[in-house]
Amino acid sequence: MADSWLPTLKTATPEDGFNLATKMSRMGVKVTQPSAEVRDKLRPGYADDADALIASSQVIAINFQTVAAANDYWK
Amino acid sequence: MADSWLPTLKTATPEDGFNLATKMSRMGVKVTQPSAEVRDKLRPGYADDADALIASSQVIAINFQTVAAANDYWK
Amino acid sequence: MADSWLPTLKTATPEDGFNLATKMSRMGVKVTQPSAEVRDKLRPGYADDADALIASSQVIAINFQTVAAANDYWK
Amino acid sequence: MADSWLPTLKTATPEDGFNLATKMSRMGVKVTQPSAEVRDKLRPGYADDADALIASSQVIAINFQTVAAANDYWK
Amino acid sequence: MADSWLPTLKTATPEDGFNLATKMSRMGVKVTQPSAEVRDKLRPGYADDADALIASSQVIAINFQTVAAANDYWK
Amino acid sequence: MADSWLPTLKTATPEDGFNLATKMSRMGVKVTQPSAEVRDKLRPGYADDADALIASSQVIAINFQTVAAANDYWK
Repeated sequence: MADSWLPTLKTATPEDGFNLATKMSRMGVKVTQPSAEVRDKLRPGYADDADALIASSQVIAINFQTVAAANDYWK
Repeated sequence: MADSWLPTLKTATPEDGFNLATKMSRMGVKVTQPSAEVRDKLRPGYADDADALIASSQVIAINFQTVAAANDYWK
Repeated sequence: MADSWLPTLKTATPEDGFNLATKMSRMGVKVTQPSAEVRDKLRPGYADDADALIASSQVIAINFQTVAAANDYWK
Repeated sequence: MADSWLPTLKTATPEDGFNLATKMSRMGVKVTQPSAEVRDKLRPGYADDADALIASSQVIAINFQTVAAANDYWK
Repeated sequence: MADSWLPTLKTATPEDGFNLATKMSRMGVKVTQPSAEVRDKLRPGYADDADALIASSQVIAINFQTVAAANDYWK
Repeated sequence: MADSWLPTLKTATPEDGFNLATKMSRMGVKVTQPSAEVRDKLRPGYADDADALIASSQVIAINFQTVAAANDYWK
C-alpha cells in the first residue's frame, strides 16, 4: 500500500478531499497519455483555454463527489 | 482550519450552499490555472460565450449535488 | 430567508421541482455572467442552437436530480 | 395535477420510465426554447448529427437515473 | 412485458449489466433519430471519431451507474 | 465467469478500483468501435489532444463512482 498513489479515499478535511479529487483527475489523464513529456507540452495550450479549464473543473467536481461520499461528507 | 478555503461542506441555507458550489467550481479552475492574471484575461472571452456559461452552470450543478447531500438537503 | 432566491429545495410537485431546477440552471449562468444585458444579447444565439439547447437540458437534468432527492422523489 | 406534464415520477415499468426520461429531456429543451416552430426547424439538423444524438442520449440517461431511483429501480 | 426492450434492470452479472447499459445508450439515440437508415449512415462517421467514441463511452458509464445500483452492485 | 472481462465490481484497493474504472471506460469505446485496428489508428490523435484527455478522465471518474460505491468506498 505504501507505493500506491491511491491507498485510501479518506482525508482529514474537505480541502484535502478536494486536493485528492484533483490528483485523481490528473491520473485519469495520465493513464490515457502516460508520457510526461507529451502532457507537459499540452499544458500551456489547455491552461490558457477557458473551455478546457471549465472541463477540468468538471472532472474534479465528479471525483470530489466520490471522495466526499467516501468521507460521509466530513460530517 | 481557519486558513482553509473549504473547512466544511455545511451551510446554513440552500442559497449559501449554491454559493459554496460556485466557489468550488472556481477553485477547480484555479488549481489547473493558478495564475490570476491569466484567469482574468480569459474571463471576458468565456463570460460572453453561451456555451461556456452553460458549461459553467453544469459544473456548479455537479458541485451543488455534493453540497446538498452533505447538508441532507437542508431538510 | 424571504429575500433568498433559493430558500428551500422542497416543492409541492415534481413539475414545480422541474421549474426550480430550471431556475437553478439559470442562476448558474447568472453568477458567471452577472450582466442581464449581456445574457439577453446571448439568448437569441443559443436558443436557436441545438447543441446549446441539449446542453441546457442536461444542466436542468442534473439540478433536477438534486431537487428530486431533496423531495424524496415526491413519493 | 391533471394538467401537469409531470404529475409523478412513478411508472409501471422500466420502459415507461425510460419514456418519461425522454419526455423530461425534451421539456428541458422546451423551457429554454419555447417556440415549437424554432424547435421543429432545428430538429432535422441535430437528428442527422451523431454528436447531438449522443448528447441527447446522455441527457436521457441522466434523467433516467432520477426516474429509476424514484421507482426504487422497479425492484 | 415480453415485448418490452427493457422489462427489467436486473441482470445476472456485471458484464450483462454493462451490455444492458450499452443497449440503453443506443435506445437514447434511437428515440431521437428513429430512422435506422439515417443511424446506419451516421455510424461510420462517429465510429472513426475519437471524441464521439469517448462521448459514447460516457453515456454507457452513466447508464451503467443506474443498472449497477438497480442490482445492488451484484454484491 | 472465468471468461468475463467484468466478473465483479469488487477490488482489493481504491487503486485497483481506479484501474477497473479505466478498463470499463475503454470497453465503452470498444463496444462502439469493435475494430482494434481502427482504435489503434485513433489513439495518437486523441492522446495528444488535451480536450480528449480531459474527456477520457471524466469517463473514468464516472465509472470510478460506480466502482467505489460497489466497494462501499473501501471503508
